[in-house]
Amino acid sequence: MSKQTDDFFKNVVSHAKEYGFVFPSSEIYDGLSAVYDYGQLGSELKNNLKQYWWKAMVQLHENIVGIDAAIFMHPTTWKASGHVDGFNDPMIDNKDSKKRYRADQLIEDKIARYETDGKTEKAQQLQADLNAALNDDDLPRLKTIIEEHNIVCPVSGTKNWTEVRQFNLMFSTQMGASAEGADTVYLRPETAQGIFVNFLNVQKSGRMKVPFGIAQIGKAFRNEVIARQFIMRMREFEQMELQFFVRPGTELEWYSKWKETRLKWHLALGGDTAKYRYHDHVKLAHYANAAVDIEYEFPFGFKEVEGIHSRTDFDLIQHQKFSGKKLQYFDPEINQNYVPYVIETSIGLDRLFLTVLCNSFEEQDLSTEDKKDSRSVLHFHPALAPVKAAILPLTKKDGLPDKAREILNRLKIDYNVQYDEKDSIGKRYRRQDAIGTPFCITVDYQSLEDDTVTLRHRDSMEQERVAAVDLEKIISDLVGWKNLLAVL
Amino acid sequence: MSKQTDDFFKNVVSHAKEYGFVFPSSEIYDGLSAVYDYGQLGSELKNNLKQYWWKAMVQLHENIVGIDAAIFMHPTTWKASGHVDGFNDPMIDNKDSKKRYRADQLIEDKIARYETDGKTEKAQQLQADLNAALNDDDLPRLKTIIEEHNIVCPVSGTKNWTEVRQFNLMFSTQMGASAEGADTVYLRPETAQGIFVNFLNVQKSGRMKVPFGIAQIGKAFRNEVIARQFIMRMREFEQMELQFFVRPGTELEWYSKWKETRLKWHLALGGDTAKYRYHDHVKLAHYANAAVDIEYEFPFGFKEVEGIHSRTDFDLIQHQKFSGKKLQYFDPEINQNYVPYVIETSIGLDRLFLTVLCNSFEEQDLSTEDKKDSRSVLHFHPALAPVKAAILPLTKKDGLPDKAREILNRLKIDYNVQYDEKDSIGKRYRRQDAIGTPFCITVDYQSLEDDTVTLRHRDSMEQERVAAVDLEKIISDLVGWKNLLAVL
Repeated sequence: MSKQTDDFFKNVVSHAKEYGFVFPSSEIYDGLSAVYDYGQLGSELKNNLKQYWWKAMVQLHENIVGIDAAIFMHPTTWKASGHVDGFNDPMIDNKDSKKRYRADQLIEDKIARYETDGKTEKAQQLQADLNAALNDDDLPRLKTIIEEHNIVCPVSGTKNWTEVRQFNLMFSTQMGASAEGADTVYLRPETAQGIFVNFLNVQKSGRMKVPFGIAQIGKAFRNEVIARQFIMRMREFEQMELQFFVRPGTELEWYSKWKETRLKWHLALGGDTAKYRYHDHVKLAHYANAAVDIEYEFPFGFKEVEGIHSRTDFDLIQHQKFSGKKLQYFDPEINQNYVPYVIETSIGLDRLFLTVLCNSFEEQDLSTEDKKDSRSVLHFHPALAPVKAAILPLTKKDGLPDKAREILNRLKIDYNVQYDEKDSIGKRYRRQDAIGTPFCITVDYQSLEDDTVTLRHRDSMEQERVAAVDLEKIISDLVGWKNLLAVL
Repeated sequence: MSKQTDDFFKNVVSHAKEYGFVFPSSEIYDGLSAVYDYGQLGSELKNNLKQYWWKAMVQLHENIVGIDAAIFMHPTTWKASGHVDGFNDPMIDNKDSKKRYRADQLIEDKIARYETDGKTEKAQQLQADLNAALNDDDLPRLKTIIEEHNIVCPVSGTKNWTEVRQFNLMFSTQMGASAEGADTVYLRPETAQGIFVNFLNVQKSGRMKVPFGIAQIGKAFRNEVIARQFIMRMREFEQMELQFFVRPGTELEWYSKWKETRLKWHLALGGDTAKYRYHDHVKLAHYANAAVDIEYEFPFGFKEVEGIHSRTDFDLIQHQKFSGKKLQYFDPEINQNYVPYVIETSIGLDRLFLTVLCNSFEEQDLSTEDKKDSRSVLHFHPALAPVKAAILPLTKKDGLPDKAREILNRLKIDYNVQYDEKDSIGKRYRRQDAIGTPFCITVDYQSLEDDTVTLRHRDSMEQERVAAVDLEKIISDLVGWKNLLAVL
C-alpha cells in the first residue's frame, strides 16, 4: 500500500469505529482476534445489504427461493463435501518465537519483497515453485523453499523452523450429552452445503422446476491461521449464496448469465465502477468447470468480493454417495431423470460491507479562498443508508422541536430516521454527512407559517424548500428500493 | 396433551414440513437432533418476524438502536456473566441403558404421573422437595429423591443410577492456531452479553442518553441434554433481545412499561388472544429484582415465549470487575456518574415462529349439506405472510398468462408474490390458503377487456372485482407494515 492508500484505509477503519459501524469484538476485554461486532449503524447497513441481495435474488426471480439452514449440520455432510479431509492450510512453526505461520503466506511475503527490490525474475521463479508445491500438496517442498530462500521468522528473526503440517480450518465442538459420549460436529465453513442437503425438500415442497435456485444468507466459520485487514478475513463471517440448479449441458450458458447479472448488481450501488473487475480462474477447484471472481480494488489491492462457480454435479453426487438417497430431478420437458448441475454465486457479506465503506468514504475538501474547510462523508446509495433522513429543528425553542417531532413521528413508521437538536445546524449537517444520511429536513420559523421545510441533499449539499405534507412521497421516491432494483 | 391437541400439533408439524416452512436439519443424513432448517416459506416468515420486531423496537423508538455482535466473544465474558461456573443442568446416567437424563426432569415426569393418578398431595410434596434441592444446588439430594420415589429409567426399567453431576450447557471450541495452543472459546449461550460488552461503544459513538436501549437479533447455542417439542427447544436457536438502560431507582417503572408494551406487540399479531398470559416469577434469578414471562398456550400447555427481566446492574458491574474498565454513564440531568440498571426483553424467535404457526393454522370444515369439503389455512397477519399475493391466470391460454405476468412484474418490485397457472383455480386457491397467502389475484377473460381482476381474500374467501391499475395501492394498504405498527 502506498502511504496515501494506507492513510485512506486507516481513516475508513477509524471512521467505522468512531461512528458506530464496526467495533472490535469484546473490546473491553481487549478484543478477540479476527472477530468484529457491527454497531448501531453497521447493523443497519448490513441489514440493508442483505435486503438488497434478497430482494434482487429471491423477490425479483420467480424461480429462486430462499432458505435458512442451521449452522450445525450432520457431520457426514462435511465428509461428503470434502471438508473433513481437504479443508486445510499448510502451517509451520518457528521454534524460537513459538509463532505459527501459513507456509504459503511466508513465501508470498518473500515474493512481494523480491518485487519491491526489483528482483522480478526471482519473484516469478519463486511464485512458480510455490504454485507447483501447492498443486502437488507437497509439504516437504514448501519447507525446502522456505529454507532455500532464507525466509526468517518476522518475530525471532531465525530460521529455526518445524516441518510443514496440514491444519484443518473447521471449528469443531461436542454436541449432545449421551452417556456413551458426545458427537463431534462442525461449525459450517460455508453455507452452500445447507442448500445441497435441502435440495430435494425444497424442490418437492416448493414444486420447483429446473432451472431454479435456492438462496441463503448466514454465518460461516473458518479457523484462519492468520486473519488480516479488518473485516476482510474474519474467523466468523457471513455469506450470501445462491445455488442455481440447471439441466446438465446448459451450465456454461447459465454461468455466463450469472457472471453478468452479479457484476451489474454490484455496479448498481454506484461509487467508482472502475474499481470492479472480473478475475477468471485459470486453476479450477476440483468441483468446478468454470470460475470467476468479481474483484474490488481495496486500498490494499484488488481482492475477491464475490465468486461465481460452475460447480457441476459434484456436491449432489457426493451427498448421494454418502447418504444413499437419490438426489435427482425428473425433467418433464425431456422426460428424463438427472442430477442437476449447479451454478454458485457466493458473496462474503463482510467484504461487501467493506467494499461499500471504501467506495463511499470521502474526506472532502470544501475550502474556499477565504476559509479552510472539509467534511467526512459517506456517499451511500440512499437505499443502503442506515439513516434515511434526519429531522432538525433550527433551534430548541419556539415550538420548532414539536413541529420537527411531528414530522419524525410520521416518517418513522416507514423509515429509520433521526432527530437531532444539539449544536449548530452546520455541525448537525456534518454529523449526518459522516454517517451517510442522504437527506436532512430542517424545520425553521417559516415552517411554522407555511408548513414548508428545507430538504438538504448530502452529496450536493444543495437545499430546496418543500411542503412538509409531501415529505413521505419525496423520501419514498428518493430512498425506496425501487430505485436500486429497477436498474437490475 | 389430549388426543385432540396432540393431533393438532402433529398436523402443524407435518404441515410445516409439507409446505416448506421447517425441515429437520440434514434430513438426508437422518437429521441432527434438536436442530432444524427453515425452508423457502419458513425463512420468509422468520424474516418477517424479525422485521416486525426490529421496526417496532428500533425504528419506532428514537432512543433504541440495534447492534449485531459476533457469536464468538472473548472467553472472559462468560466468566463475568457467570455462565462458565453456573450454566449447568443436573445430569444422571442409567448404568444399564447407558442413557443420560436431566435429574430434575425425571422427577418432574414422576410428579406428572402422581397427578394423573390423582395423588395430588404426593405430587405437591415431591414438587416442594424438588424445588428445595434445586434451590440449594443439592445434587446428592436429587439422587436420593429419585431413589426414594422408585424412579426407573424409561429405557431399561432399572434403578441402577450413577451420581448426579453438573453438566455445562455451553458449546466450546478451539480458536486460533498459535504454536502455544489454541484458546477455548464458547458459542454464546445468549445474545445479551454482546450488548453489555458494547454498552460504552454504542453509548459514546451514538451519543445516547439514558434511558436508552440496545436491541439485537442473533443466534445462540445451548447443548440441551434433552431437546423436545419440534422447534420449541433447540440446540441452535435465535433470540431477539433488548437491553434497556435506565437510571437506578427507575427500573421497576420501566419494567412495568416494557411488560405492557411487549404483550401488546404479541397481541397485535391477531389470532386467539386468550392464549396469551403473564407468568410472574416468584423465584428470581440472582441478577434480577423482577421478572415475568409472556406465555402462550401451545397444544402442549402454556410455555414461555418472551421473558422480561429487571436485571439491575448485575451484568455491567460484573464486566467492570472482570475487565477493569469503568462501565459508567454520566447523567447530565442529575450531574452524576452511575452504572445504569437494565430492563431486558428477550424473545425466542423460533418459539415465536411456533406460536404464530399454532395461532394461525386451521383445518377448516367447509362442508355444505350437499358436499363434504375442508381446507387447511394459515391465517397469518398479512404483514407476516411469506407470500403477499398470488397472481393466477384463469387458464393457460388466450393471453391470460401474459396479462398475469405483467401484473406479477409490477408487484414483485415491492412484494414477494407468486405466479401459478397449474391445476384448477379452486385447487390453486387452496394451495395459497395452505401457505397463508392473504390475497389471490385472478386474471380472467374480462381482465383482457376492462383491465379488472378478481381479488380473493384468504380468510373470508370473498371475492371482489378491482381495477388492475389499483393493485399496488390496494396490496400496499392491506399488507404494509403500517397496519401492524400503527396499533402499537
